[in-house]
Amino acid sequence: MEHIGHRVWAIPEGFVPDGSTGPESMASHETACILNTGDEDAHVKITLFFPDREPAGPYEVAVPARRTLHQRFNELTDDGSVPVGADYASVLVSDVPVVVQHTRLDSRQAANALLSTIAYAS
Amino acid sequence: MEHIGHRVWAIPEGFVPDGSTGPESMASHETACILNTGDEDAHVKITLFFPDREPAGPYEVAVPARRTLHQRFNELTDDGSVPVGADYASVLVSDVPVVVQHTRLDSRQAANALLSTIAYAS
Amino acid sequence: MEHIGHRVWAIPEGFVPDGSTGPESMASHETACILNTGDEDAHVKITLFFPDREPAGPYEVAVPARRTLHQRFNELTDDGSVPVGADYASVLVSDVPVVVQHTRLDSRQAANALLSTIAYAS
Amino acid sequence: MEHIGHRVWAIPEGFVPDGSTGPESMASHETACILNTGDEDAHVKITLFFPDREPAGPYEVAVPARRTLHQRFNELTDDGSVPVGADYASVLVSDVPVVVQHTRLDSRQAANALLSTIAYAS
Repeated sequence: MEHIGHRVWAIPEGFVPDGSTGPESMASHETACILNTGDEDAHVKITLFFPDREPAGPYEVAVPARRTLHQRFNELTDDGSVPVGADYASVLVSDVPVVVQHTRLDSRQAANALLSTIAYAS
Repeated sequence: MEHIGHRVWAIPEGFVPDGSTGPESMASHETACILNTGDEDAHVKITLFFPDREPAGPYEVAVPARRTLHQRFNELTDDGSVPVGADYASVLVSDVPVVVQHTRLDSRQAANALLSTIAYAS
Repeated sequence: MEHIGHRVWAIPEGFVPDGSTGPESMASHETACILNTGDEDAHVKITLFFPDREPAGPYEVAVPARRTLHQRFNELTDDGSVPVGADYASVLVSDVPVVVQHTRLDSRQAANALLSTIAYAS
Repeated sequence: MEHIGHRVWAIPEGFVPDGSTGPESMASHETACILNTGDEDAHVKITLFFPDREPAGPYEVAVPARRTLHQRFNELTDDGSVPVGADYASVLVSDVPVVVQHTRLDSRQAANALLSTIAYAS
């Protein structure tokens, strides 16, 4: 299949809740779901934006040809770039067209909440 | 009415939770809502993408003229192509323009969570 | 302000849950939020599509100049055109550009679920 | 990074629930998440639309270069322009391109509900 999508995507809403309830599989998290439909691997650079300091990154992830990657933001770095319980935003720049969807599971309270939207394609 | 929409749609986020609470009508599921506003039947080929293996399908569904089909992914196949409790993504290719919206009900915990977004039109 | 948006909008996902919990203000419902930013009144014709029968409508609603209308689908008709507990889809056609967002509150179980997406603009 | 996005954005759905449960950090609120990826500050004028009266505003917020602002609507004014428990809609006009996402947390009942969508770009 050919490459579907765009090379630049933006997600203004980012927030990793600082608590969870329920089992580990239900831990609060925020995910960028990246779909690469084409025959070339995608190399995606993720830059994080904050309310009060300079952007961080870019962090690079790879999405092989004809694969999907559901990347949790809180597993993107281990240097604290994605602060738990604070606002951020993200931009993804790929070397081949991909499609990006943004999903958040919030399990701070016993009843989980879930949101999702196709990201903004530029 | 004329055909509204596009022929190619992508949904990067796919996840059928592996558990439910409550009555059968509230079972966890993921749905592609397809709307065919025009006077010709739509034949839609659905291909599934995974993190770690080649795509599966295409699986074909039909949406008659002037009808809507709310297709549950876990009823698309009975050969295990849609793994419960695992990540996937999907691409829908139609022979006439349609509109696609993606919805998930997650009822693993007593309190249900619900997400929805118009899919990415290519 | 000038008219922002498009004249034709589609919402493939439609489902009015057939039950609620909690007070009347939290009753399950599905809403088309229509924004008319311009100086001319908008006359919007809403057609409903079903899985297994011909479309119903159009039903006409008016959105005055510089106003927003949050139209509940279950208040659109009183002839049973919007079946409770069943699938449908909708198309909105306006005589001036408007913007449409689709929201559902599902309060069948004690814990509410909420979804929203900008509709598909044609 | 260059400026990504559009100058005009619309959010037809607006509703600040008139009640909350849980701790202050989980209070019901509605947010416009604005991302400014470029090197110039963004000055964003927010106009509010209602079902039954003339629009209010514009209210101006600033998003510095390379920053994100998650603006709660109920903190936009202190003159009652955003009525709690009532419908409204909003239009954001920026002097440089930005990206806007709309999120609502509804914690009127013990189980929270969450919605989000990329706003309509004009």
